[in-house]
Amino acid sequence: MPDFAAWSRAMQARMETALDRMLPAETLAPERLHAAMRYVALGGGKRVRPMLAFAAGEAVGAEPARVEIAACAVELIHVYSLTHDDLPCMDDDDLRRGKPTCHVQFDEATALLVGDALQSLAFEVLSSPAPGGLDGTVQTQMLGLLARASGSRGMAGGQAVDLFSTGKNLDLAELEFMHIHKTGALIQAAVLLGALSNGDLEATARAGLERYARCVGLAFQVMDDVLDAETDTATLGKTAGKDAAQGKATYLTLMSTREARAYAADLVTDAERAISLFGTSARRLSEIARFIIERRY
Amino acid sequence: MPDFAAWSRAMQARMETALDRMLPAETLAPERLHAAMRYVALGGGKRVRPMLAFAAGEAVGAEPARVEIAACAVELIHVYSLTHDDLPCMDDDDLRRGKPTCHVQFDEATALLVGDALQSLAFEVLSSPAPGGLDGTVQTQMLGLLARASGSRGMAGGQAVDLFSTGKNLDLAELEFMHIHKTGALIQAAVLLGALSNGDLEATARAGLERYARCVGLAFQVMDDVLDAETDTATLGKTAGKDAAQGKATYLTLMSTREARAYAADLVTDAERAISLFGTSARRLSEIARFIIERRY
Repeated sequence: MPDFAAWSRAMQARMETALDRMLPAETLAPERLHAAMRYVALGGGKRVRPMLAFAAGEAVGAEPARVEIAACAVELIHVYSLTHDDLPCMDDDDLRRGKPTCHVQFDEATALLVGDALQSLAFEVLSSPAPGGLDGTVQTQMLGLLARASGSRGMAGGQAVDLFSTGKNLDLAELEFMHIHKTGALIQAAVLLGALSNGDLEATARAGLERYARCVGLAFQVMDDVLDAETDTATLGKTAGKDAAQGKATYLTLMSTREARAYAADLVTDAERAISLFGTSARRLSEIARFIIERRY
Repeated sequence: MPDFAAWSRAMQARMETALDRMLPAETLAPERLHAAMRYVALGGGKRVRPMLAFAAGEAVGAEPARVEIAACAVELIHVYSLTHDDLPCMDDDDLRRGKPTCHVQFDEATALLVGDALQSLAFEVLSSPAPGGLDGTVQTQMLGLLARASGSRGMAGGQAVDLFSTGKNLDLAELEFMHIHKTGALIQAAVLLGALSNGDLEATARAGLERYARCVGLAFQVMDDVLDAETDTATLGKTAGKDAAQGKATYLTLMSTREARAYAADLVTDAERAISLFGTSARRLSEIARFIIERRY
Protein backbone atom coordinates (compact mmCIF):
# COMPACT_ATOMS: atom_id res chain seq x y z
CA MET A 1 0.00 0.00 0.00
CA PRO A 2 1.53 3.38 -1.00
CA ASP A 3 2.33 5.83 1.78
CA PHE A 4 0.12 8.88 2.25
CA ALA A 5 2.30 11.27 0.22
CA ALA A 6 2.37 8.87 -2.76
CA TRP A 7 -1.37 8.18 -2.44
CA SER A 8 -2.29 11.85 -2.34
CA ARG A 9 -0.12 12.56 -5.41
CA ALA A 10 -1.84 9.69 -7.21
CA MET A 11 -5.29 11.06 -6.26
CA GLN A 12 -4.31 14.55 -7.45
CA ALA A 13 -3.14 13.12 -10.78
CA ARG A 14 -6.31 11.06 -11.09
CA MET A 15 -8.46 14.15 -10.42
CA GLU A 16 -6.57 16.18 -13.02
CA THR A 17 -7.30 13.52 -15.65
CA ALA A 18 -10.92 13.07 -14.58
CA LEU A 19 -11.72 16.81 -14.47
CA ASP A 20 -9.99 17.31 -17.82
CA ARG A 21 -12.32 14.67 -19.29
CA MET A 22 -15.46 16.11 -17.66
CA LEU A 23 -14.85 19.77 -18.55
CA PRO A 24 -15.97 20.80 -22.07
CA ALA A 25 -13.06 21.21 -24.53
CA GLU A 26 -11.71 24.70 -25.27
CA THR A 27 -12.52 24.08 -28.93
CA LEU A 28 -16.23 23.83 -28.11
CA ALA A 29 -18.38 27.00 -28.27
CA PRO A 30 -18.43 29.24 -26.29
CA GLU A 31 -14.65 28.77 -26.42
CA ARG A 32 -13.70 31.62 -24.12
CA LEU A 33 -16.05 30.42 -21.37
CA HIS A 34 -14.74 26.87 -21.65
CA ALA A 35 -11.13 28.08 -21.63
CA ALA A 36 -11.85 30.04 -18.44
CA MET A 37 -13.62 27.08 -16.79
CA ARG A 38 -10.57 24.91 -17.50
CA TYR A 39 -8.24 27.67 -16.29
CA VAL A 40 -9.78 27.67 -12.82
CA ALA A 41 -10.49 23.94 -12.48
CA LEU A 42 -7.29 22.38 -13.82
CA GLY A 43 -3.58 22.55 -13.03
CA GLY A 44 -3.46 22.75 -9.28
CA GLY A 45 -5.30 22.64 -6.03
CA LYS A 46 -4.74 20.40 -3.05
CA ARG A 47 -7.87 18.41 -3.97
CA VAL A 48 -8.62 17.88 -0.26
CA ARG A 49 -12.34 17.24 -0.88
CA PRO A 50 -11.75 14.62 -3.60
CA MET A 51 -9.20 12.90 -1.33
CA LEU A 52 -11.85 12.79 1.42
CA ALA A 53 -14.33 11.27 -1.03
CA PHE A 54 -11.87 8.57 -2.16
CA ALA A 55 -10.86 7.83 1.43
CA ALA A 56 -14.50 7.55 2.56
CA GLY A 57 -15.23 5.34 -0.43
CA GLU A 58 -12.34 3.10 0.62
CA ALA A 59 -13.72 2.89 4.16
CA VAL A 60 -16.97 1.33 2.88
CA GLY A 61 -15.42 -0.63 -0.01
CA ALA A 62 -16.78 1.51 -2.87
CA GLU A 63 -15.51 1.14 -6.43
CA PRO A 64 -13.04 4.04 -7.06
CA ALA A 65 -14.44 4.63 -10.59
CA ARG A 66 -17.79 5.49 -8.98
CA VAL A 67 -16.26 7.60 -6.24
CA GLU A 68 -14.45 9.60 -8.91
CA ILE A 69 -17.79 11.00 -10.13
CA ALA A 70 -18.72 12.21 -6.64
CA ALA A 71 -15.19 13.57 -6.11
CA CYS A 72 -15.33 15.58 -9.34
CA ALA A 73 -18.80 16.96 -8.57
CA VAL A 74 -17.72 18.20 -5.13
CA GLU A 75 -14.48 19.68 -6.50
CA LEU A 76 -16.39 21.55 -9.24
CA ILE A 77 -18.61 23.13 -6.57
CA HIS A 78 -15.49 24.06 -4.59
CA VAL A 79 -13.78 25.62 -7.62
CA TYR A 80 -16.93 27.59 -8.55
CA SER A 81 -17.09 28.97 -5.00
CA LEU A 82 -13.43 30.05 -5.11
CA THR A 83 -14.01 31.81 -8.45
CA HIS A 84 -16.98 33.79 -7.11
CA ASP A 85 -15.29 34.37 -3.75
CA ASP A 86 -12.34 36.06 -5.47
CA LEU A 87 -14.57 38.58 -7.33
CA PRO A 88 -14.18 42.29 -6.53
CA CYS A 89 -17.59 42.45 -4.78
CA MET A 90 -16.52 39.58 -2.49
CA ASP A 91 -12.90 39.09 -1.30
CA ASP A 92 -11.41 40.97 -4.29
CA ASP A 93 -8.40 38.69 -4.56
CA ASP A 94 -5.84 38.70 -7.41
CA LEU A 95 -4.02 35.47 -6.68
CA ARG A 96 -5.24 31.89 -6.36
CA ARG A 97 -3.23 28.67 -6.51
CA GLY A 98 -0.24 30.81 -7.52
CA LYS A 99 -1.99 32.17 -10.64
CA PRO A 100 -3.98 35.35 -11.38
CA THR A 101 -7.63 34.84 -10.36
CA CYS A 102 -10.23 34.31 -13.08
CA HIS A 103 -11.56 37.87 -13.22
CA VAL A 104 -7.98 39.18 -13.46
CA GLN A 105 -6.93 36.71 -16.18
CA PHE A 106 -10.25 37.04 -18.07
CA ASP A 107 -12.83 39.57 -16.84
CA GLU A 108 -15.52 39.88 -14.17
CA ALA A 109 -18.47 38.83 -16.32
CA THR A 110 -16.59 35.74 -17.50
CA ALA A 111 -15.64 34.83 -13.93
CA LEU A 112 -19.28 35.16 -12.89
CA LEU A 113 -20.44 32.85 -15.71
CA VAL A 114 -17.55 30.43 -15.05
CA GLY A 115 -18.75 29.95 -11.49
CA ASP A 116 -22.38 29.61 -12.58
CA ALA A 117 -21.53 27.05 -15.26
CA LEU A 118 -19.22 25.06 -12.95
CA GLN A 119 -22.04 24.73 -10.43
CA SER A 120 -24.34 23.37 -13.17
CA LEU A 121 -21.57 21.03 -14.35
CA ALA A 122 -21.21 19.59 -10.84
CA PHE A 123 -24.85 18.47 -10.89
CA GLU A 124 -24.54 17.27 -14.50
CA VAL A 125 -21.54 15.12 -13.55
CA LEU A 126 -23.24 13.72 -10.45
CA SER A 127 -26.35 12.80 -12.47
CA SER A 128 -24.33 10.90 -15.10
CA PRO A 129 -24.66 7.10 -15.13
CA ALA A 130 -22.38 5.52 -12.51
CA PRO A 131 -19.96 2.84 -13.79
CA GLY A 132 -21.58 -0.49 -13.05
CA GLY A 133 -24.88 1.25 -12.32
CA LEU A 134 -26.13 2.91 -9.15
CA ASP A 135 -29.63 2.77 -7.72
CA GLY A 136 -31.57 5.79 -9.00
CA THR A 137 -32.96 6.55 -5.54
CA VAL A 138 -29.45 6.69 -4.06
CA GLN A 139 -28.23 8.86 -6.92
CA THR A 140 -31.14 11.26 -6.37
CA GLN A 141 -30.29 11.29 -2.64
CA MET A 142 -26.67 12.19 -3.54
CA LEU A 143 -27.79 15.03 -5.82
CA GLY A 144 -30.04 16.40 -3.08
CA LEU A 145 -27.23 16.17 -0.55
CA LEU A 146 -24.82 18.10 -2.78
CA ALA A 147 -27.49 20.73 -3.52
CA ARG A 148 -28.23 21.30 0.20
CA ALA A 149 -24.51 21.42 1.04
CA SER A 150 -23.96 24.07 -1.66
CA GLY A 151 -26.97 26.27 -0.99
CA SER A 152 -28.17 28.90 1.46
CA ARG A 153 -28.15 26.51 4.41
CA GLY A 154 -24.73 25.21 3.38
CA MET A 155 -21.74 26.77 1.63
CA ALA A 156 -23.43 29.83 0.08
CA GLY A 157 -25.13 30.53 3.42
CA GLY A 158 -21.76 30.35 5.19
CA GLN A 159 -20.30 32.82 2.73
CA ALA A 160 -23.21 35.15 3.43
CA VAL A 161 -22.58 34.92 7.19
CA ASP A 162 -18.88 35.59 6.53
CA LEU A 163 -19.80 38.62 4.43
CA PHE A 164 -22.32 40.10 6.86
CA SER A 165 -20.06 39.58 9.89
CA THR A 166 -16.92 41.23 8.49
CA GLY A 167 -15.75 43.86 10.95
CA LYS A 168 -17.86 42.39 13.77
CA ASN A 169 -16.57 40.51 16.79
CA LEU A 170 -17.75 36.92 16.62
CA ASP A 171 -17.60 34.56 19.57
CA LEU A 172 -16.45 30.96 19.10
CA ALA A 173 -20.01 29.67 18.56
CA GLU A 174 -20.71 32.25 15.84
CA LEU A 175 -17.34 31.66 14.18
CA GLU A 176 -17.95 27.91 14.10
CA PHE A 177 -21.51 28.36 12.79
CA MET A 178 -19.93 30.23 9.86
CA HIS A 179 -17.23 27.63 9.21
CA ILE A 180 -19.55 24.65 9.58
CA HIS A 181 -21.53 26.17 6.72
CA LYS A 182 -18.89 27.90 4.61
CA THR A 183 -16.40 25.03 4.38
CA GLY A 184 -17.81 22.27 6.59
CA ALA A 185 -20.92 21.56 4.53
CA LEU A 186 -18.98 20.74 1.38
CA ILE A 187 -16.38 18.71 3.29
CA GLN A 188 -19.20 16.68 4.80
CA ALA A 189 -20.73 16.26 1.33
CA ALA A 190 -17.38 14.98 0.00
CA VAL A 191 -17.16 12.34 2.74
CA LEU A 192 -20.81 11.23 2.49
CA LEU A 193 -20.93 11.22 -1.32
CA GLY A 194 -17.73 9.16 -1.46
CA ALA A 195 -19.32 6.58 0.84
CA LEU A 196 -22.75 6.72 -0.85
CA SER A 197 -21.06 5.81 -4.15
CA ASN A 198 -21.25 2.28 -2.76
CA GLY A 199 -25.01 2.53 -2.13
CA ASP A 200 -27.11 3.70 0.80
CA LEU A 201 -25.47 3.92 4.26
CA GLU A 202 -26.52 2.44 7.57
CA ALA A 203 -27.34 4.97 10.29
CA THR A 204 -24.26 4.28 12.47
CA ALA A 205 -21.85 4.44 9.51
CA ARG A 206 -23.45 7.66 8.36
CA ALA A 207 -23.33 9.23 11.82
CA GLY A 208 -19.65 8.28 12.20
CA LEU A 209 -18.74 9.81 8.84
CA GLU A 210 -20.73 12.97 9.63
CA ARG A 211 -18.91 13.44 12.94
CA TYR A 212 -15.54 12.74 11.28
CA ALA A 213 -16.33 15.32 8.58
CA ARG A 214 -17.43 17.96 11.09
CA CYS A 215 -14.21 17.60 13.12
CA VAL A 216 -11.96 17.50 10.06
CA GLY A 217 -13.72 20.52 8.54
CA LEU A 218 -13.21 22.62 11.67
CA ALA A 219 -9.60 21.43 12.14
CA PHE A 220 -8.91 22.36 8.53
CA GLN A 221 -10.29 25.87 9.13
CA VAL A 222 -8.37 26.36 12.38
CA MET A 223 -5.14 25.41 10.61
CA ASP A 224 -6.03 27.65 7.65
CA ASP A 225 -6.17 30.60 10.03
CA VAL A 226 -2.88 29.59 11.65
CA LEU A 227 -1.15 29.16 8.28
CA ASP A 228 -2.66 32.37 6.90
CA ALA A 229 -1.05 34.25 9.79
CA GLU A 230 2.30 32.41 9.76
CA THR A 231 3.06 31.73 6.13
CA ASP A 232 4.17 34.01 3.28
CA THR A 233 2.13 34.55 0.09
CA ALA A 234 4.56 32.65 -2.18
CA THR A 235 4.36 29.45 -0.12
CA LEU A 236 0.60 29.74 0.34
CA GLY A 237 -0.15 30.38 -3.37
CA LYS A 238 -2.77 32.92 -2.29
CA THR A 239 -2.59 36.30 -0.58
CA ALA A 240 -1.42 35.76 3.01
CA GLY A 241 -2.68 37.72 6.01
CA LYS A 242 -5.73 38.86 4.07
CA ASP A 243 -8.42 37.82 6.54
CA ALA A 244 -6.91 39.79 9.39
CA ALA A 245 -6.36 42.80 7.11
CA GLN A 246 -10.02 42.75 6.04
CA GLY A 247 -11.22 42.65 9.64
CA LYS A 248 -12.59 39.12 9.32
CA ALA A 249 -13.03 37.03 12.40
CA THR A 250 -10.52 34.18 12.66
CA TYR A 251 -9.65 31.65 15.35
CA LEU A 252 -6.62 33.79 16.15
CA THR A 253 -8.82 36.67 17.28
CA LEU A 254 -10.19 34.24 19.92
CA MET A 255 -7.10 32.23 20.89
CA SER A 256 -3.32 32.11 20.56
CA THR A 257 -1.56 30.20 17.78
CA ARG A 258 -0.50 27.57 20.32
CA GLU A 259 -4.09 27.19 21.57
CA ALA A 260 -5.37 26.98 18.00
CA ARG A 261 -2.93 24.21 17.15
CA ALA A 262 -3.92 22.27 20.29
CA TYR A 263 -7.62 22.73 19.45
CA ALA A 264 -7.04 21.39 15.91
CA ALA A 265 -5.18 18.39 17.35
CA ASP A 266 -8.13 17.63 19.68
CA LEU A 267 -10.53 17.82 16.75
CA VAL A 268 -8.39 15.38 14.77
CA THR A 269 -8.35 12.93 17.72
CA ASP A 270 -12.15 13.15 17.82
CA ALA A 271 -12.31 12.64 14.03
CA GLU A 272 -10.24 9.45 14.27
CA ARG A 273 -12.44 8.13 17.07
CA ALA A 274 -15.57 8.75 14.97
CA ILE A 275 -14.39 6.41 12.20
CA SER A 276 -12.99 3.64 14.41
CA LEU A 277 -15.99 1.49 13.47
CA PHE A 278 -14.57 1.07 9.96
CA GLY A 279 -11.34 -0.51 11.27
CA THR A 280 -8.27 -0.56 9.01
CA SER A 281 -10.28 0.35 5.90
CA ALA A 282 -10.51 3.88 7.30
CA ARG A 283 -6.73 4.25 7.18
CA ARG A 284 -6.74 6.98 4.53
CA LEU A 285 -9.41 8.96 6.40
CA SER A 286 -7.12 8.94 9.47
CA GLU A 287 -4.12 9.96 7.40
CA ILE A 288 -6.01 12.92 5.90
CA ALA A 289 -7.09 14.05 9.36
CA ARG A 290 -3.51 13.93 10.62
CA PHE A 291 -2.19 15.61 7.47
CA ILE A 292 -4.42 18.60 8.15
CA ILE A 293 -2.62 19.46 11.37
CA GLU A 294 0.83 18.70 9.93
CA ARG A 295 0.58 20.57 6.61
CA ARG A 296 2.64 23.69 5.91
CA TYR A 297 0.38 25.32 3.28
CA MET B 1 -62.33 24.34 -18.54
CA PRO B 2 -61.11 27.87 -17.63
CA ASP B 3 -60.04 30.15 -20.47
CA PHE B 4 -56.35 30.87 -20.97
CA ALA B 5 -56.29 34.14 -19.04
CA ALA B 6 -57.94 32.51 -16.00
CA TRP B 7 -55.70 29.43 -16.27
CA SER B 8 -52.52 31.48 -16.45
CA ARG B 9 -53.59 33.56 -13.42
CA ALA B 10 -54.28 30.33 -11.53
CA MET B 11 -50.83 28.97 -12.47
CA GLN B 12 -49.15 32.21 -11.38
CA ALA B 13 -50.94 32.06 -8.03
CA ARG B 14 -50.04 28.39 -7.65
CA MET B 15 -46.37 29.15 -8.36
CA GLU B 16 -46.35 31.99 -5.83
CA THR B 17 -47.60 29.62 -3.14
CA ALA B 18 -45.27 26.79 -4.16
CA LEU B 19 -42.15 28.96 -4.34
CA ASP B 20 -43.03 30.59 -1.03
CA ARG B 21 -43.11 27.11 0.52
CA MET B 22 -39.84 25.97 -1.09
CA LEU B 23 -37.80 29.09 -0.31
CA PRO B 24 -36.23 29.17 3.18
CA ALA B 25 -38.03 31.51 5.61
CA GLU B 26 -36.63 34.99 6.25
CA THR B 27 -36.43 34.10 9.93
CA LEU B 28 -33.89 31.34 9.15
CA ALA B 29 -30.16 32.19 9.25
CA PRO B 30 -28.62 33.74 7.22
CA GLU B 31 -31.69 35.98 7.33
CA ARG B 32 -30.46 38.67 4.94
CA LEU B 33 -29.60 36.11 2.25
CA HIS B 34 -32.98 34.41 2.60
CA ALA B 35 -34.80 37.78 2.51
CA ALA B 36 -32.95 38.62 -0.71
CA MET B 37 -33.70 35.22 -2.27
CA ARG B 38 -37.40 35.73 -1.53
CA TYR B 39 -37.24 39.32 -2.82
CA VAL B 40 -36.14 38.18 -6.28
CA ALA B 41 -38.17 34.97 -6.52
CA LEU B 42 -41.58 36.05 -5.18
CA GLY B 43 -44.16 38.68 -6.02
CA GLY B 44 -44.16 38.83 -9.77
CA GLY B 45 -42.92 37.42 -13.01
CA LYS B 46 -44.88 36.08 -15.93
CA ARG B 47 -43.95 32.49 -14.93
CA VAL B 48 -43.81 31.51 -18.60
CA ARG B 49 -41.52 28.51 -17.95
CA PRO B 50 -43.72 27.08 -15.17
CA MET B 51 -46.77 27.51 -17.42
CA LEU B 52 -44.96 25.56 -20.13
CA ALA B 53 -44.14 22.81 -17.62
CA PHE B 54 -47.77 22.56 -16.44
CA ALA B 55 -49.06 22.62 -20.04
CA ALA B 56 -46.59 19.90 -21.12
CA GLY B 57 -47.54 17.84 -18.07
CA GLU B 58 -51.20 18.17 -19.09
CA ALA B 59 -50.35 16.99 -22.62
CA VAL B 60 -49.03 13.66 -21.27
CA GLY B 61 -51.47 13.36 -18.35
CA ALA B 62 -49.00 14.06 -15.53
CA GLU B 63 -50.13 14.73 -11.97
CA PRO B 64 -49.97 18.55 -11.43
CA ALA B 65 -48.52 18.12 -7.91
CA ARG B 66 -45.50 16.42 -9.50
CA VAL B 67 -45.20 18.93 -12.31
CA GLU B 68 -45.13 21.70 -9.70
CA ILE B 69 -41.71 20.47 -8.50
CA ALA B 70 -40.24 20.64 -12.00
CA ALA B 71 -41.89 24.03 -12.60
CA CYS B 72 -40.38 25.47 -9.43
CA ALA B 73 -36.92 24.09 -10.19
CA VAL B 74 -36.91 25.65 -13.66
CA GLU B 75 -38.24 28.98 -12.37
CA LEU B 76 -35.54 29.10 -9.65
CA ILE B 77 -32.86 28.66 -12.34
CA HIS B 78 -34.52 31.44 -14.36
CA VAL B 79 -34.68 33.81 -11.39
CA TYR B 80 -31.03 33.13 -10.48
CA SER B 81 -29.99 33.94 -14.06
CA LEU B 82 -31.92 37.24 -14.01
CA THR B 83 -30.27 38.19 -10.71
CA HIS B 84 -26.77 37.58 -12.07
CA ASP B 85 -27.63 39.07 -15.47
CA ASP B 86 -28.62 42.36 -13.82
CA LEU B 87 -25.25 42.72 -12.00
CA PRO B 88 -23.02 45.69 -12.91
CA CYS B 89 -20.43 43.43 -14.61
CA MET B 90 -23.19 42.02 -16.86
CA ASP B 91 -26.17 44.10 -18.05
CA ASP B 92 -25.96 46.57 -15.16
CA ASP B 93 -29.70 46.96 -14.84
CA ASP B 94 -31.53 48.78 -12.03
CA LEU B 95 -35.08 47.65 -12.67
CA ARG B 96 -36.63 44.19 -12.89
CA ARG B 97 -40.30 43.22 -12.69
CA GLY B 98 -40.99 46.85 -11.78
CA LYS B 99 -38.76 46.73 -8.67
CA PRO B 100 -35.14 47.70 -7.98
CA THR B 101 -32.83 44.83 -8.96
CA CYS B 102 -31.28 42.71 -6.20
CA HIS B 103 -27.87 44.42 -6.14
CA VAL B 104 -29.60 47.82 -5.96
CA GLN B 105 -32.02 46.79 -3.19
CA PHE B 106 -29.35 44.82 -1.27
CA ASP B 107 -25.75 44.88 -2.55
CA GLU B 108 -23.60 43.20 -5.19
CA ALA B 109 -22.14 40.49 -2.99
CA THR B 110 -25.61 39.53 -1.75
CA ALA B 111 -26.96 39.43 -5.31
CA LEU B 112 -24.09 37.15 -6.30
CA LEU B 113 -24.81 34.75 -3.42
CA VAL B 114 -28.57 34.93 -4.04
CA GLY B 115 -28.04 33.68 -7.60
CA ASP B 116 -25.62 30.98 -6.45
CA ALA B 117 -27.97 29.77 -3.73
CA LEU B 118 -31.04 29.82 -5.99
CA GLN B 119 -29.23 27.60 -8.47
CA SER B 120 -28.46 25.10 -5.68
CA LEU B 121 -32.06 25.31 -4.47
CA ALA B 122 -33.33 24.42 -7.95
CA PHE B 123 -31.45 21.12 -7.82
CA GLU B 124 -32.46 20.55 -4.21
CA VAL B 125 -36.13 21.01 -5.13
CA LEU B 126 -35.87 18.73 -8.17
CA SER B 127 -34.21 16.00 -6.10
CA SER B 128 -36.95 16.05 -3.45
CA PRO B 129 -39.31 13.06 -3.33
CA ALA B 130 -42.07 13.38 -5.93
CA PRO B 131 -45.67 13.11 -4.61
CA GLY B 132 -46.76 9.54 -5.23
CA GLY B 133 -43.17 8.54 -5.98
CA LEU B 134 -41.17 8.83 -9.20
CA ASP B 135 -38.71 6.30 -10.58
CA GLY B 136 -35.20 7.21 -9.35
CA THR B 137 -33.72 6.74 -12.82
CA VAL B 138 -36.20 9.20 -14.34
CA GLN B 139 -35.58 11.69 -11.54
CA THR B 140 -31.81 11.44 -12.12
CA GLN B 141 -32.45 11.97 -15.85
CA MET B 142 -34.48 15.10 -15.01
CA LEU B 143 -31.69 16.46 -12.80
CA GLY B 144 -29.14 15.86 -15.55
CA LEU B 145 -31.38 17.55 -18.10
CA LEU B 146 -31.80 20.67 -15.93
CA ALA B 147 -28.04 20.79 -15.24
CA ARG B 148 -27.15 20.61 -18.96
CA ALA B 149 -29.79 23.20 -19.85
CA SER B 150 -28.37 25.57 -17.21
CA GLY B 151 -24.66 25.12 -17.92
CA SER B 152 -22.01 26.15 -20.41
CA ARG B 153 -23.69 24.36 -23.31
CA GLY B 154 -27.06 25.76 -22.27
CA MET B 155 -28.17 28.98 -20.61
CA ALA B 156 -24.82 30.10 -19.11
CA GLY B 157 -23.15 29.37 -22.46
CA GLY B 158 -25.74 31.47 -24.27
CA GLN B 159 -25.10 34.34 -21.87
CA ALA B 160 -21.38 34.04 -22.59
CA VAL B 161 -22.04 34.22 -26.35
CA ASP B 162 -24.28 37.25 -25.76
CA LEU B 163 -21.53 38.89 -23.71
CA PHE B 164 -18.70 38.19 -26.16
CA SER B 165 -20.73 39.27 -29.21
CA THR B 166 -21.89 42.66 -27.87
CA GLY B 167 -20.93 45.30 -30.41
CA LYS B 168 -20.42 42.71 -33.17
CA ASN B 169 -22.69 42.15 -36.17
CA LEU B 170 -24.28 38.73 -35.87
CA ASP B 171 -26.01 37.01 -38.77
CA LEU B 172 -29.32 35.20 -38.22
CA ALA B 173 -27.61 31.84 -37.62
CA GLU B 174 -25.31 33.31 -34.96
CA LEU B 175 -28.15 35.23 -33.32
CA GLU B 176 -30.28 32.08 -33.12
CA PHE B 177 -27.36 30.02 -31.79
CA MET B 178 -27.19 32.53 -28.94
CA HIS B 179 -30.94 32.51 -28.24
CA ILE B 180 -31.28 28.72 -28.51
CA HIS B 181 -28.77 28.57 -25.66
CA LYS B 182 -29.51 31.71 -23.64
CA THR B 183 -33.28 31.31 -23.36
CA GLY B 184 -34.15 28.27 -25.49
CA ALA B 185 -32.35 25.67 -23.38
CA LEU B 186 -34.31 26.48 -20.22
CA ILE B 187 -37.61 26.73 -22.10
CA GLN B 188 -36.96 23.28 -23.52
CA ALA B 189 -36.08 22.02 -20.04
CA ALA B 190 -39.40 23.40 -18.72
CA VAL B 191 -41.39 21.55 -21.39
CA LEU B 192 -39.48 18.26 -21.08
CA LEU B 193 -39.37 18.26 -17.27
CA GLY B 194 -43.09 18.95 -17.12
CA ALA B 195 -43.72 15.92 -19.32
CA LEU B 196 -41.10 13.72 -17.60
CA SER B 197 -42.94 14.30 -14.31
CA ASN B 198 -45.21 11.57 -15.61
CA GLY B 199 -42.31 9.15 -16.21
CA ASP B 200 -40.00 8.50 -19.15
CA LEU B 201 -41.09 9.70 -22.62
CA GLU B 202 -41.36 7.81 -25.90
CA ALA B 203 -39.07 9.04 -28.67
CA THR B 204 -41.80 10.60 -30.84
CA ALA B 205 -43.43 12.43 -27.92
CA ARG B 206 -40.04 13.73 -26.82
CA ALA B 207 -39.10 14.86 -30.34
CA GLY B 208 -42.43 16.67 -30.73
CA LEU B 209 -42.01 18.48 -27.42
CA GLU B 210 -38.41 19.41 -28.26
CA ARG B 211 -39.45 20.92 -31.60
CA TYR B 212 -42.36 22.75 -29.95
CA ALA B 213 -40.01 24.15 -27.32
CA ARG B 214 -37.42 25.25 -29.89
CA CYS B 215 -40.04 27.15 -31.93
CA VAL B 216 -41.72 28.69 -28.89
CA GLY B 217 -38.35 29.73 -27.44
CA LEU B 218 -37.33 31.54 -30.62
CA ALA B 219 -40.76 33.11 -31.10
CA PHE B 220 -40.60 34.36 -27.52
CA GLN B 221 -37.21 35.96 -28.19
CA VAL B 222 -38.31 37.55 -31.47
CA MET B 223 -41.30 39.10 -29.70
CA ASP B 224 -39.07 40.19 -26.81
CA ASP B 225 -36.98 42.20 -29.25
CA VAL B 226 -40.10 43.67 -30.87
CA LEU B 227 -41.62 44.63 -27.51
CA ASP B 228 -38.29 45.97 -26.22
CA ALA B 229 -38.22 48.38 -29.15
CA GLU B 230 -41.92 49.33 -29.13
CA THR B 231 -42.90 49.44 -25.45
CA ASP B 232 -42.12 51.91 -22.68
CA THR B 233 -40.25 51.00 -19.49
CA ALA B 234 -43.29 51.33 -17.20
CA THR B 235 -45.36 48.82 -19.19
CA LEU B 236 -42.41 46.44 -19.61
CA GLY B 237 -41.40 46.47 -15.92
CA LYS B 238 -37.75 46.50 -17.01
CA THR B 239 -35.60 49.05 -18.80
CA ALA B 240 -36.85 49.36 -22.40
CA GLY B 241 -34.60 49.85 -25.44
CA LYS B 242 -31.59 48.64 -23.47
CA ASP B 243 -30.36 45.98 -25.91
CA ALA B 244 -30.14 48.40 -28.81
CA ALA B 245 -28.48 51.03 -26.62
CA GLN B 246 -25.83 48.50 -25.51
CA GLY B 247 -25.04 47.53 -29.10
CA LYS B 248 -26.47 44.05 -28.67
CA ALA B 249 -27.60 42.14 -31.71
CA THR B 250 -31.39 41.77 -31.92
CA TYR B 251 -33.79 40.47 -34.56
CA LEU B 252 -34.54 44.07 -35.44
CA THR B 253 -30.97 44.64 -36.63
CA LEU B 254 -31.65 41.87 -39.18
CA MET B 255 -35.31 42.48 -40.13
CA SER B 256 -38.14 44.99 -39.83
CA THR B 257 -40.71 44.87 -37.02
CA ARG B 258 -43.32 43.63 -39.51
CA GLU B 259 -40.98 40.85 -40.71
CA ALA B 260 -40.14 39.90 -37.13
CA ARG B 261 -43.83 39.58 -36.23
CA ALA B 262 -44.43 37.42 -39.31
CA TYR B 263 -41.42 35.25 -38.44
CA ALA B 264 -42.71 34.76 -34.89
CA ALA B 265 -46.14 33.80 -36.26
CA ASP B 266 -44.53 31.17 -38.54
CA LEU B 267 -42.63 29.73 -35.61
CA VAL B 268 -45.82 29.47 -33.59
CA THR B 269 -47.56 27.64 -36.45
CA ASP B 270 -44.64 25.20 -36.53
CA ALA B 271 -44.84 24.80 -32.75
CA GLU B 272 -48.52 23.90 -32.93
CA ARG B 273 -47.83 21.36 -35.67
CA ALA B 274 -45.11 19.73 -33.54
CA ILE B 275 -47.55 18.89 -30.75
CA SER B 276 -50.49 17.78 -32.91
CA LEU B 277 -49.74 14.18 -31.88
CA PHE B 278 -51.04 14.94 -28.38
CA GLY B 279 -54.49 15.96 -29.67
CA THR B 280 -56.72 18.08 -27.45
CA SER B 281 -54.64 17.42 -24.32
CA ALA B 282 -52.05 19.83 -25.80
CA ARG B 283 -54.58 22.68 -25.73
CA ARG B 284 -52.65 24.73 -23.13
CA LEU B 285 -49.38 24.31 -25.04
CA SER B 286 -51.09 25.77 -28.13
CA GLU B 287 -52.57 28.62 -26.12
CA ILE B 288 -49.17 29.52 -24.67
CA ALA B 289 -47.63 29.53 -28.15
CA ARG B 290 -50.34 31.86 -29.43
CA PHE B 291 -50.12 34.07 -26.33
CA ILE B 292 -46.45 34.70 -27.08
CA ILE B 293 -47.23 36.49 -30.33
CA GLU B 294 -50.23 38.32 -28.91
CA ARG B 295 -48.74 39.58 -25.64
CA ARG B 296 -48.08 43.27 -25.04
CA TYR B 297 -45.26 43.00 -22.44
